[in-house]
Amino acid sequence: MKAYLTRRYRISASHRLQSDALTNEQNRAVYGKCNNPYGHGHNYTLEVTVSGQVRPDTGMVCDLSELDGAVSNFVVNRFDHQNLNTLADFAARVPTTENLALVIYDILKRSFTAAHLEKLRIEETLMNSFEYAGDAEVHR
Amino acid sequence: MKAYLTRRYRISASHRLQSDALTNEQNRAVYGKCNNPYGHGHNYTLEVTVSGQVRPDTGMVCDLSELDGAVSNFVVNRFDHQNLNTLADFAARVPTTENLALVIYDILKRSFTAAHLEKLRIEETLMNSFEYAGDAEVHR
Amino acid sequence: MKAYLTRRYRISASHRLQSDALTNEQNRAVYGKCNNPYGHGHNYTLEVTVSGQVRPDTGMVCDLSELDGAVSNFVVNRFDHQNLNTLADFAARVPTTENLALVIYDILKRSFTAAHLEKLRIEETLMNSFEYAGDAEVHR
Amino acid sequence: MKAYLTRRYRISASHRLQSDALTNEQNRAVYGKCNNPYGHGHNYTLEVTVSGQVRPDTGMVCDLSELDGAVSNFVVNRFDHQNLNTLADFAARVPTTENLALVIYDILKRSFTAAHLEKLRIEETLMNSFEYAGDAEVHR
Amino acid sequence: MKAYLTRRYRISASHRLQSDALTNEQNRAVYGKCNNPYGHGHNYTLEVTVSGQVRPDTGMVCDLSELDGAVSNFVVNRFDHQNLNTLADFAARVPTTENLALVIYDILKRSFTAAHLEKLRIEETLMNSFEYAGDAEVHR
Amino acid sequence: MKAYLTRRYRISASHRLQSDALTNEQNRAVYGKCNNPYGHGHNYTLEVTVSGQVRPDTGMVCDLSELDGAVSNFVVNRFDHQNLNTLADFAARVPTTENLALVIYDILKRSFTAAHLEKLRIEETLMNSFEYAGDAEVHR
Repeated sequence: MKAYLTRRYRISASHRLQSDALTNEQNRAVYGKCNNPYGHGHNYTLEVTVSGQVRPDTGMVCDLSELDGAVSNFVVNRFDHQNLNTLADFAARVPTTENLALVIYDILKRSFTAAHLEKLRIEETLMNSFEYAGDAEVHR
Repeated sequence: MKAYLTRRYRISASHRLQSDALTNEQNRAVYGKCNNPYGHGHNYTLEVTVSGQVRPDTGMVCDLSELDGAVSNFVVNRFDHQNLNTLADFAARVPTTENLALVIYDILKRSFTAAHLEKLRIEETLMNSFEYAGDAEVHR
Repeated sequence: MKAYLTRRYRISASHRLQSDALTNEQNRAVYGKCNNPYGHGHNYTLEVTVSGQVRPDTGMVCDLSELDGAVSNFVVNRFDHQNLNTLADFAARVPTTENLALVIYDILKRSFTAAHLEKLRIEETLMNSFEYAGDAEVHR
Repeated sequence: MKAYLTRRYRISASHRLQSDALTNEQNRAVYGKCNNPYGHGHNYTLEVTVSGQVRPDTGMVCDLSELDGAVSNFVVNRFDHQNLNTLADFAARVPTTENLALVIYDILKRSFTAAHLEKLRIEETLMNSFEYAGDAEVHR
Repeated sequence: MKAYLTRRYRISASHRLQSDALTNEQNRAVYGKCNNPYGHGHNYTLEVTVSGQVRPDTGMVCDLSELDGAVSNFVVNRFDHQNLNTLADFAARVPTTENLALVIYDILKRSFTAAHLEKLRIEETLMNSFEYAGDAEVHR
Repeated sequence: MKAYLTRRYRISASHRLQSDALTNEQNRAVYGKCNNPYGHGHNYTLEVTVSGQVRPDTGMVCDLSELDGAVSNFVVNRFDHQNLNTLADFAARVPTTENLALVIYDILKRSFTAAHLEKLRIEETLMNSFEYAGDAEVHR
């Protein structure tokens, strides 16, 4: 009786896509207007999916307040209303949404243990979203 | 040529989270304001996913009216505009959304056979959703 | 340079529609399944619209934290995760969404004065919403 | 470090569901009002999910403009603002959304190779959606 | 204590934009791909706003089942799953969403009298919507 | 037969709220985390409402491509994927969403004349939106 719980959080942040591994010309070609020098921003929607047995005593996979506590303390407080390029997490990584997902996954894998972390989904805009589920083989 | 069809239904219901297996103090700690004595309520969105081969003659996985009939007769009519705590299904189970998903899954597994029942997803609020796919190993 | 600011809040609550002014038969006819004896519930979305001049020093109509404080303290804390029928506000009023809007409007008119309260909109379900703007002549 | 990218596109089209393999009476029974002789239409939302390693130099699974180019040239231009029944793709197939998904999957499998095509999801209405992921065993 | 009630309905239909008052060339210039000869389609969302005093006995502006009955019988049954160009309503009018709003407004003005019809809003796509409120001076 | 047309556009941008008219301490108090030194960002949704008679020959209030052209050339191109604080429009104004609405309104009032500009609505986040309609007396 394994069930999956997905909870949604919101983060507003700015970033500029620019890679040290590319020339200026390549940066403009690859990132287009996301390479604008002064940055731009998004309202990111973060969905965290965890799984586990439904506990017979509580009828729940895990205590929501534990999940909210971990995401709030270690993720939202760290990234919300920030310029991603100025954070240590992105000193050596381009702050694409793919990399943001990898960084948040690593943080939650270490800081939340009350249920199994299945995957993250981050919606960057109405038109774009990204998923990451660690190294495990997952479906999508 | 196996395809997946997801259809969405809506159920408005009330519940109070209170477990006989916990003390009053534990109930308040675990369920917070969901333990308020007189209950509260939600607009649940139920998504039912079924799968099967796309039939060459109809171009469909299954007849939607059969799926709608089963969900309407056996699920929506039973739970919509009800107080979940007063129903037999929750006499011995806390009416969390996890348990609501398990109960609805069992009902549909028995009553709908025109295609394979893959999984259920129930959105409790804009911020919370739950998935259940039986005992089979599923992705999320 | 008058501008309008709308902010959205969410309230989950239960209610039963039953009027003392009607017979049992009339109650069933008028309210249908909303008259079910044990109640049901909704996720209400409350949108509060206030207006005022855009202040030259701050570029804002009003300080959002003042609006959030008033709505949180006097409205969300009072109605969220409650059974509306058990509250004093609905001792002599049927807890329809129309009446919920009137009650919340009166509360906010008294408790929030940092900008002009224009109107409230409450979404009861994906299919229904209600607006109230006091006695003033408004458009919709 | 395999990640999944989903991008959303929109297509407005009309269709009539009518199968040569069925009698007129069967067509009316199976398709209901979707069998109306002059057709009707939908705003389809197409979600394309691709996957791959996050490239260390760009921080991306693939260049979005390549994906957008393939979907725009080979899918949106072909189906948007069209009557599906008049297209060669549906000369021998009923233009159900299941079949539309199969046809688009085949087109993209051939025309987009910059990342792995995982699956398609097409939302036909707010209440209906369909997924197809090729012959591979997928979850839903 | 005048309140406003808005209820949402959904209609899927097809149309082709082509005006007898314009040359073929003008039609192509004005309507672009909406002038494609075989038509295309949309999921229209219709929002009907009515107003009135909140009745003290029922706490409601009007009986929702009366509004639903009128819209269902006279509007949804007439336009849903139809090709608008084949209907008498559009024999002498181009089936733009502006004209669809005018036609539906006239129908409802005559057939629904249990509260004041304030206005209609029709969403044609995620990006487009149209409002009509009769000849009365309204805000938007 | 005056109708209203609303069209939606999307802009992703970053900003920092900091007013020269306030001390550093006041800036932190008024703007909270929106005063973070390196900025943050949003996906803004811009809704432009215009009105006019429905033309008998075209059945439209105005040619959508004219509206799209004006908004695209003079608004989206100017603000999308930019840091608002670096633009001349905000050299002497705090880039709040109220001020963004005023600036865009002025631009469109001058550059779009094919129908009457009624108002703008900008959604900053899922929880916040702002409207501006010039100096005319409007409802919200």
